[in-house]
Amino acid sequence: MAAELTEDQAMIVETARAFAQERLRPNAARWEEEGLDRGVLEELAQLGFAGIYVREEHGGSGLTRHDAALIFEELSRGCIATSAFMSIHNMCAWMIDSFGSDEQRAEWLPQLTAGKKIASYCLTEPGSGSDAGALRTTAKADGNSQYVINGSKAFISGAGFSDLYVLMCRTGEDGPKGVSTMLVENGTPGLSFGKMEDKMGWRAQPTAIVAFDNCKVPVDNRVGPEGEGFKYAMKGLDGGRLNIAACALGGAQDAFDRALAYVQERKQFGKRIADFQNTQFTLADMATDLAASRALLHQAAQKLDAKAPDATKFCAMAKRFVTDTAFKVADQALQLHGGYGYLADYEVERIVRDLRVHRILEGTNEIMRVIVARELLKS
Amino acid sequence: MAAELTEDQAMIVETARAFAQERLRPNAARWEEEGLDRGVLEELAQLGFAGIYVREEHGGSGLTRHDAALIFEELSRGCIATSAFMSIHNMCAWMIDSFGSDEQRAEWLPQLTAGKKIASYCLTEPGSGSDAGALRTTAKADGNSQYVINGSKAFISGAGFSDLYVLMCRTGEDGPKGVSTMLVENGTPGLSFGKMEDKMGWRAQPTAIVAFDNCKVPVDNRVGPEGEGFKYAMKGLDGGRLNIAACALGGAQDAFDRALAYVQERKQFGKRIADFQNTQFTLADMATDLAASRALLHQAAQKLDAKAPDATKFCAMAKRFVTDTAFKVADQALQLHGGYGYLADYEVERIVRDLRVHRILEGTNEIMRVIVARELLKS
Amino acid sequence: MAAELTEDQAMIVETARAFAQERLRPNAARWEEEGLDRGVLEELAQLGFAGIYVREEHGGSGLTRHDAALIFEELSRGCIATSAFMSIHNMCAWMIDSFGSDEQRAEWLPQLTAGKKIASYCLTEPGSGSDAGALRTTAKADGNSQYVINGSKAFISGAGFSDLYVLMCRTGEDGPKGVSTMLVENGTPGLSFGKMEDKMGWRAQPTAIVAFDNCKVPVDNRVGPEGEGFKYAMKGLDGGRLNIAACALGGAQDAFDRALAYVQERKQFGKRIADFQNTQFTLADMATDLAASRALLHQAAQKLDAKAPDATKFCAMAKRFVTDTAFKVADQALQLHGGYGYLADYEVERIVRDLRVHRILEGTNEIMRVIVARELLKS
Amino acid sequence: MAAELTEDQAMIVETARAFAQERLRPNAARWEEEGLDRGVLEELAQLGFAGIYVREEHGGSGLTRHDAALIFEELSRGCIATSAFMSIHNMCAWMIDSFGSDEQRAEWLPQLTAGKKIASYCLTEPGSGSDAGALRTTAKADGNSQYVINGSKAFISGAGFSDLYVLMCRTGEDGPKGVSTMLVENGTPGLSFGKMEDKMGWRAQPTAIVAFDNCKVPVDNRVGPEGEGFKYAMKGLDGGRLNIAACALGGAQDAFDRALAYVQERKQFGKRIADFQNTQFTLADMATDLAASRALLHQAAQKLDAKAPDATKFCAMAKRFVTDTAFKVADQALQLHGGYGYLADYEVERIVRDLRVHRILEGTNEIMRVIVARELLKS
Repeated sequence: MAAELTEDQAMIVETARAFAQERLRPNAARWEEEGLDRGVLEELAQLGFAGIYVREEHGGSGLTRHDAALIFEELSRGCIATSAFMSIHNMCAWMIDSFGSDEQRAEWLPQLTAGKKIASYCLTEPGSGSDAGALRTTAKADGNSQYVINGSKAFISGAGFSDLYVLMCRTGEDGPKGVSTMLVENGTPGLSFGKMEDKMGWRAQPTAIVAFDNCKVPVDNRVGPEGEGFKYAMKGLDGGRLNIAACALGGAQDAFDRALAYVQERKQFGKRIADFQNTQFTLADMATDLAASRALLHQAAQKLDAKAPDATKFCAMAKRFVTDTAFKVADQALQLHGGYGYLADYEVERIVRDLRVHRILEGTNEIMRVIVARELLKS
Repeated sequence: MAAELTEDQAMIVETARAFAQERLRPNAARWEEEGLDRGVLEELAQLGFAGIYVREEHGGSGLTRHDAALIFEELSRGCIATSAFMSIHNMCAWMIDSFGSDEQRAEWLPQLTAGKKIASYCLTEPGSGSDAGALRTTAKADGNSQYVINGSKAFISGAGFSDLYVLMCRTGEDGPKGVSTMLVENGTPGLSFGKMEDKMGWRAQPTAIVAFDNCKVPVDNRVGPEGEGFKYAMKGLDGGRLNIAACALGGAQDAFDRALAYVQERKQFGKRIADFQNTQFTLADMATDLAASRALLHQAAQKLDAKAPDATKFCAMAKRFVTDTAFKVADQALQLHGGYGYLADYEVERIVRDLRVHRILEGTNEIMRVIVARELLKS
Repeated sequence: MAAELTEDQAMIVETARAFAQERLRPNAARWEEEGLDRGVLEELAQLGFAGIYVREEHGGSGLTRHDAALIFEELSRGCIATSAFMSIHNMCAWMIDSFGSDEQRAEWLPQLTAGKKIASYCLTEPGSGSDAGALRTTAKADGNSQYVINGSKAFISGAGFSDLYVLMCRTGEDGPKGVSTMLVENGTPGLSFGKMEDKMGWRAQPTAIVAFDNCKVPVDNRVGPEGEGFKYAMKGLDGGRLNIAACALGGAQDAFDRALAYVQERKQFGKRIADFQNTQFTLADMATDLAASRALLHQAAQKLDAKAPDATKFCAMAKRFVTDTAFKVADQALQLHGGYGYLADYEVERIVRDLRVHRILEGTNEIMRVIVARELLKS
Repeated sequence: MAAELTEDQAMIVETARAFAQERLRPNAARWEEEGLDRGVLEELAQLGFAGIYVREEHGGSGLTRHDAALIFEELSRGCIATSAFMSIHNMCAWMIDSFGSDEQRAEWLPQLTAGKKIASYCLTEPGSGSDAGALRTTAKADGNSQYVINGSKAFISGAGFSDLYVLMCRTGEDGPKGVSTMLVENGTPGLSFGKMEDKMGWRAQPTAIVAFDNCKVPVDNRVGPEGEGFKYAMKGLDGGRLNIAACALGGAQDAFDRALAYVQERKQFGKRIADFQNTQFTLADMATDLAASRALLHQAAQKLDAKAPDATKFCAMAKRFVTDTAFKVADQALQLHGGYGYLADYEVERIVRDLRVHRILEGTNEIMRVIVARELLKS
């Protein structure tokens, strides 16, 4: 890969890898029980990973989507849940940096990029997963100074844990054009959280419904003009998909690394498991699948960085391909462990469980196909 | 299927299905937290499902392997962990019926077939998964009246929970010919259990190491002559594989049923999810895969019942095919649920986790390929 | 399989197998160049394979769909193109037996079942593949005594070669209810044939457009009443799908047999190819896929014989599963031959080419999914 | 892709694409009957495609492996057989440029790069496909001035057609170290060609056994010192694999383009085939697979250009992944055409047949797995 990374990128990768291996990987199993570690999120922020593509003048790292893909892959090799959680936080920070007012930037970016405050993203609703334009949470203007928000958001990572909620809600007509973006602070009266969901994976992350019951926020908390929210959400999607794919890739790489080590240690029928041809062919296919995933992901990221006209298509293709492939590779890694793969102690089963949601989140992989097909048939 | 089942079989299926739907399925999620329900195991015994192929004169149901495949599929549609656990208990009872002495039968079978006592099977060791002939737990004759057992068994379902442990151990030379079978009661001094394993699935079942530290059992607890144990184990394998496959099939069928219902209820983009062609094609492929699995499984079971010369090959093929397919189908069912599929409340994710081990247990699916290939190249 | 076949079936299988191995398999490569061998078709008729499910009182063999599946599989192990061609001829004979008048039966069945005359089936049109109800070839009543037929049929196996064409055409309104069935003899003025299609496989069979240009046939050539044709076509479909699947299975079995022999003969790196674990695992998966295919196919055939309410679903499932699987197995057999697999001399490449169309014919495998899904969502 | 290609590369791609679309694609079907067109090979040479990575000072184009991958993909979108044939010719020219003497370069490179002479590569033998080190064709020194060659080479593309044969033969001990490279001109006494093979695809290319019967060549025809031949062959392999992959990719892209056009033209059940969701999802998956293939291929080529230590692993991964994927995509393109896909007129079936050999050639895909696994387990 050296052939392709710039020197800066190689350094970023090194930094992320070292941190992930030392600070994340040894704790990932524990966090599944205990939840995210705030202190570690702050440490990540100190490395510049809490505002990766926030502009430098606003306290961010000013890096590219390609850089971000490298970072999230490496972090995810240590802990998928932490890495994916940070990717959401990063998206929120980027949204404020890109579309917020100077005041909003001044208020939030220093704290968000420093990891002193954590942000969550509230788009999905109980009745609208992939159909974001149909969202029903409303923010009604109450005089000139405030909005009153009612409705609820589902599957919100960081619900109750995060300090800031970047909310997509309806201020106007039905459909995409009636959607606006609001910043809602934790502690605002009328903001509450459902019971923590019992999930297959991503268990270190608190996930719950975020409910708004006559929740009042000042008009100044609106990001950009009314009716622009759906556009912001759409602009965030391509990058969000790359991040979800990058996290999947890192998790799969970790599973692969564990399997590669395991088959060289364990014996069966008097031979190392690595000495069976089936093991070798399986490892070769896994490595090949990872390499193809990484190559496609990086190309998609570069296209997004270059604002290439087919960037959306490539981001959707990468999300679909990488997340499906990563799950398959992790599943094969589990199988190579035999019965031990089924035990939490060996950690591969957690990776399998964590990666399962990457095929669903940020637009299901079926929606990715819809997007790709639309682009193909457009021309 | 009516075309193929006898009237008796149709009745057995009805009985098992009704029980599974009423008594197992509503509780499966809870048992994952609380563990197996003894009372329910007894109820299953009252239906004749604790000694399915124990001879009727010894208190069993005297049914065929084909019948058993039907039963375990139905039970597993209610609770995979309970159904699979019962299949192990059944194998133990069958082993005593087939190879035990009259005294052993008289002592154990009435209680086992009544579900008053539960049996576990102890073959796998920490260092020998699929290579059973290499087992190292020893039973040394101590005078003429007793054996002293030392060693440990891994991945034992029911460890600590069961009353009786049917143990494969070494009484003689290295290799398969030195293996004998012993009955060890819970409570015997020197018998202890490791910490309960934290597993991806089958969480209702306690799984742990079973350890023997100078554990003394009377000579009369040996099943059959010395050196016959490996043969007994081998004779149990074909049926065991069918059962593991049948349980996988039932789990996958349950996941399919849940997905079929879900896509007809939920809407997206203003249409029922069932109205999208991709949903329909996915359902069609899932149903087809289930049908092919069932057809192959039943054929293998009939071959085992008929003692066909290619029964072993067919049982290995069925185990490999059905368990891989069942996992795939359950995974597709989860995907059809979108984000809800990832939540424990919808129960499909548990099925996916439960079914994952069916590709590993009772000989990994790689070992199945070894067996099938050996048969193919023999002729 | 002995466990499942009746004695009669075992004998039928033996007869078909012996004929296929001796008279078909050695000639299949040659026929690809030279076309079908009329004499061999007559020999097949002498074995009862030209009117398999024509009633015995009408000169047929009076066998079941299950029997037919066994026969076509065996014949296809010798020559896919000949076997598949005979299956079409059989469908035509069955249609006359089932829906024709006594006069039509008397005129045609003795000759068809004796293989003295060969029949082709004309349903598909250039503009309507899977959408049979939309067919546009018309038969207009010209007085009371005759019809005048105009239009054309595409992809007709046996075009120009066969003596009788069983034609689906429109005598009435648009849609399925306007379709009738006609018998058109070769030589009828106005009947002509397009250029022979250059196809990927099934090259022994002549395939061409069959064109009707003011082609006049007596009213007595209509099978059954006007408007019943679509029903007859539909009634033939389930069985036709089983046959196409059975032929696919036989071809794949032949490819498997060739590969199994090849890998035991050839060496690479000083070992028999059969001694590499990857070869063994591939063979095991191929054999397992064939076994699952066969089990599903036989179950579907038994359901059709028993007129089970889910017979149509099972026939569609079997057609989809078996033909996809058979192609995959043949492709793997080719790969196991290395470079030699690519040469016509080794015959596996012909099998791959022949089987490719089985995924398309008799309703594409996409249409099979439509049918299965419709049945699933009906209940 | 614009984001990644240099301006020079974009121009090269444009040139190759235009030529392929105008001069190759309209003729590919005809060449399958008539064989390669010498004139077209010369035209390709005039564009610089007969000595792509021959150094410019020796008459070549001095391009990179990455450039070559771009070129062969584009040419293959026009005609796989021609493109793949040219890739072999290029390898021969490169071998002479890299390892030949000044005299050999002077004699051969001007003619080869101008397409006035065509070269074939003779490595594989009837008994040694992937085990090149075991080759048995011998070249015995006959005095100081000449070698006498005996033996035969199998599967030689261009046999009888080409002017020059770059031969790997044994001049010394068993094993890789006894292999040397010779240049043998067509017309040399003792050089003869077997019957043209009847192949599944690549039918435009003549393929036959090349036989040497006391065939005498001057010592000056030896390339480099004795015993170096195997090394040269090995050095050519990485690039050869990229080329075979690039040709596969181009063929699959052509199949995809044809399917994309077809489904937008044809209707079924009153809708464009493109309007069915299954069609859209299939197209999306095909496009994604092509994109992943291309990304991995280009990365591998860049690694080879950069002489990265893992270049061999990446070339093997790319060959395996791209050729398997390309075949799958072409097969899907055929299916999207329904029955028309099976007809030669629609050309997709030829692409499927052509691409089948890419999974076998230049080291089977099984050998690719051996190579990748070896690299993985080395570290």
